Amino acid sequence: MIKVNDNYNKLQASYLFADIAKRVEAFEQENPDKKIIKLGIGDVTKPLPDACIKAFHHGVDEMSREESFRGYGPSSGYDFLREAIAEKDFQKRGAPISPDEVFVSDGSKCDTANFQELFANDIKIGIPDPVYPVYLDSNVMAGRTGIYENGRYQGIHYLECTKENNFLPEIPNVKLDLIYLCFPNNPIGTTASKQYLKQWVDYARENKALILFDAAYEAFIRDDSPHSIFEVKGAKEVAVEFRSFSKTAGFTGTRCAATIVPEECMIYNENNEKISLYSLWTRRQNTKFNGVSYPVQKAAEAVYSDQGQKETKELISYYLKNADIITKTIDSLGFDYVGGGSSPYIWIDGGKRQSWDFFQFLLSEAAVVCTPGAGFGKCGENYIRISAFNSHENVEQAMKRLKEIL
Amino acid sequence: MIKVNDNYNKLQASYLFADIAKRVEAFEQENPDKKIIKLGIGDVTKPLPDACIKAFHHGVDEMSREESFRGYGPSSGYDFLREAIAEKDFQKRGAPISPDEVFVSDGSKCDTANFQELFANDIKIGIPDPVYPVYLDSNVMAGRTGIYENGRYQGIHYLECTKENNFLPEIPNVKLDLIYLCFPNNPIGTTASKQYLKQWVDYARENKALILFDAAYEAFIRDDSPHSIFEVKGAKEVAVEFRSFSKTAGFTGTRCAATIVPEECMIYNENNEKISLYSLWTRRQNTKFNGVSYPVQKAAEAVYSDQGQKETKELISYYLKNADIITKTIDSLGFDYVGGGSSPYIWIDGGKRQSWDFFQFLLSEAAVVCTPGAGFGKCGENYIRISAFNSHENVEQAMKRLKEIL
Repeated sequence: MIKVNDNYNKLQASYLFADIAKRVEAFEQENPDKKIIKLGIGDVTKPLPDACIKAFHHGVDEMSREESFRGYGPSSGYDFLREAIAEKDFQKRGAPISPDEVFVSDGSKCDTANFQELFANDIKIGIPDPVYPVYLDSNVMAGRTGIYENGRYQGIHYLECTKENNFLPEIPNVKLDLIYLCFPNNPIGTTASKQYLKQWVDYARENKALILFDAAYEAFIRDDSPHSIFEVKGAKEVAVEFRSFSKTAGFTGTRCAATIVPEECMIYNENNEKISLYSLWTRRQNTKFNGVSYPVQKAAEAVYSDQGQKETKELISYYLKNADIITKTIDSLGFDYVGGGSSPYIWIDGGKRQSWDFFQFLLSEAAVVCTPGAGFGKCGENYIRISAFNSHENVEQAMKRLKEIL
Repeated sequence: MIKVNDNYNKLQASYLFADIAKRVEAFEQENPDKKIIKLGIGDVTKPLPDACIKAFHHGVDEMSREESFRGYGPSSGYDFLREAIAEKDFQKRGAPISPDEVFVSDGSKCDTANFQELFANDIKIGIPDPVYPVYLDSNVMAGRTGIYENGRYQGIHYLECTKENNFLPEIPNVKLDLIYLCFPNNPIGTTASKQYLKQWVDYARENKALILFDAAYEAFIRDDSPHSIFEVKGAKEVAVEFRSFSKTAGFTGTRCAATIVPEECMIYNENNEKISLYSLWTRRQNTKFNGVSYPVQKAAEAVYSDQGQKETKELISYYLKNADIITKTIDSLGFDYVGGGSSPYIWIDGGKRQSWDFFQFLLSEAAVVCTPGAGFGKCGENYIRISAFNSHENVEQAMKRLKEIL
């Protein structure tokens, strides 16, 4: 008899964003005349930069001729892209990452979800609350948690992000083995200073722990926060970093990302012997992944050209201007909030309002879609997340509607 | 302390094709003057069909304009592609698959590797020998095997494919829960009749087992074998099928595939209650995958246009002509072989030669790369696989060289 992995049974309902999409669809069908404005899922709306389009077409053309056609590529990506990422995203900022340490993939969602496969099942995991649900769900599916009770999975150490700690989780006084961090944070929109990250790096080094650092939103940083955890000395021994072209260059529907696994990063076997994480991930990707579409890699490479850099900066500025419009409105309405400064996300304290009620209220009364904070974890209750990914016109329209009902 | 998933330790050396690539690279460096002809890894060499190129460009253009730009798509693929696949690949052949049952992905390698995540760890698995290494390695990584000993992983039921059974594994007289099958077979190149597949479907129904059917090479079928296991009545309740554009339309470097999970396909929990496999895979993909690049899906859709159908048929014929050239030569050299008729692979009995020795001999003496049969399993020892994916000129040249040394 073919038996199910019954860890799936522990998962809460459906995947958060699939859940929201369903509710929005239902509202759409009941209200075909209302123009919904989506500030929910963090999905970009502006087209790909011209530099990327040009390179994308060029890549497609190469696939049309026998002499330039590409079949299977390296599972970790073409050198041209790995070199560009290592140089422009890391070395330029004083983070000593080599092209070999860059693994190109079709998305940070996949990589953050898959990375846990490399670890033993009885490790102690620290996950922020609120959090991007993938970190948690992928560990639930793998059987690293107990059941879900009172908004929490047993066996997970939740790193609470609350107003009291300025939404920056404290360094724990227990020994954790694996820690997920994300800055600029999704969903909260906060950044982390080098001093703060150094505390985590020190903690990981002391405890032989590993940090999985999600830097998908680094392009939005306007303050002096580090863009990479590898700007912190010693981080290469204890951290892996996830990068994405999704938000930086509008690649959510084009699909390209990169995961940085430093060669000196070690994990351990039962006998306390060091095992190269780099070799493990290489083996995992060679076995279960076949690389990213060649023309997509060419499009991603173009992000690093002069034109690409200029255009992606303009894209980011466009969304950050939206963030400014949103924070100004939210502020004027008297709500407490964080984020928006160096992030496309604004995390709004709804006061006594429950997250899903607040979500439903904004949908029903203003036809504005946000994301209920509770969907990201227990500490997200009473909060909503508003995303800056939309046109200026739509964001202004949405804020006008919010002013009318709040 | 962050501990390793020590199942990785059970894996044999490196991934087969990565291993071969290294040996070829070493030979290349030592013999820069020799023109190597690669008939090893099953990688296409002809450019994408014009119909796909045109649609690919069109998809890229859509990404350049705000009004047609696409962000995150459905994780299981756009309807236009799911509908084309369901209609043209299945319904047209009498296999009643609906678009909802089609999950578009970036490759069959990922899907065949990931699918095992849905199952309990203590299921009994049947895997052909020889076999595409991914089915086996992904289960090793997940901890469903014991150690590797005498060319076999403990805990796996090997379905032997030998000359004695015409390379078609017998229906086992033990109860298996999960069975991997691949027809036209990789690496052997054999096809399976409807009568033969019906025996497996009956077996699965009787034993509440599930068949994972890899049909990546169905486009090469020239005899009257079924192209899909769903052409067999009752298969929808007990089978999942993997399809790929890689070999059908030259998408190895473009990346698009599809996995068919019928809605009526059920697996079981500990209490013998039915669980929808369809819901499980939907949840898995929503959580760990973010869909295939939009322009790539447009390119894949074009395979089903009249022009696309004509061009892909020409592509397949081109490679099958190579297969004919290879089988003719191998036959004339007095070797036993199978495959080639409805497959791009020719499986050659090297007699007393060990696979890796034969591989090395062809590389050193003829600069021809094949794949050692032993790399696919114990029953592959003394065999090599030659692939028909190359130009007519290269295949003819390679056969000429083989005639000189064999």
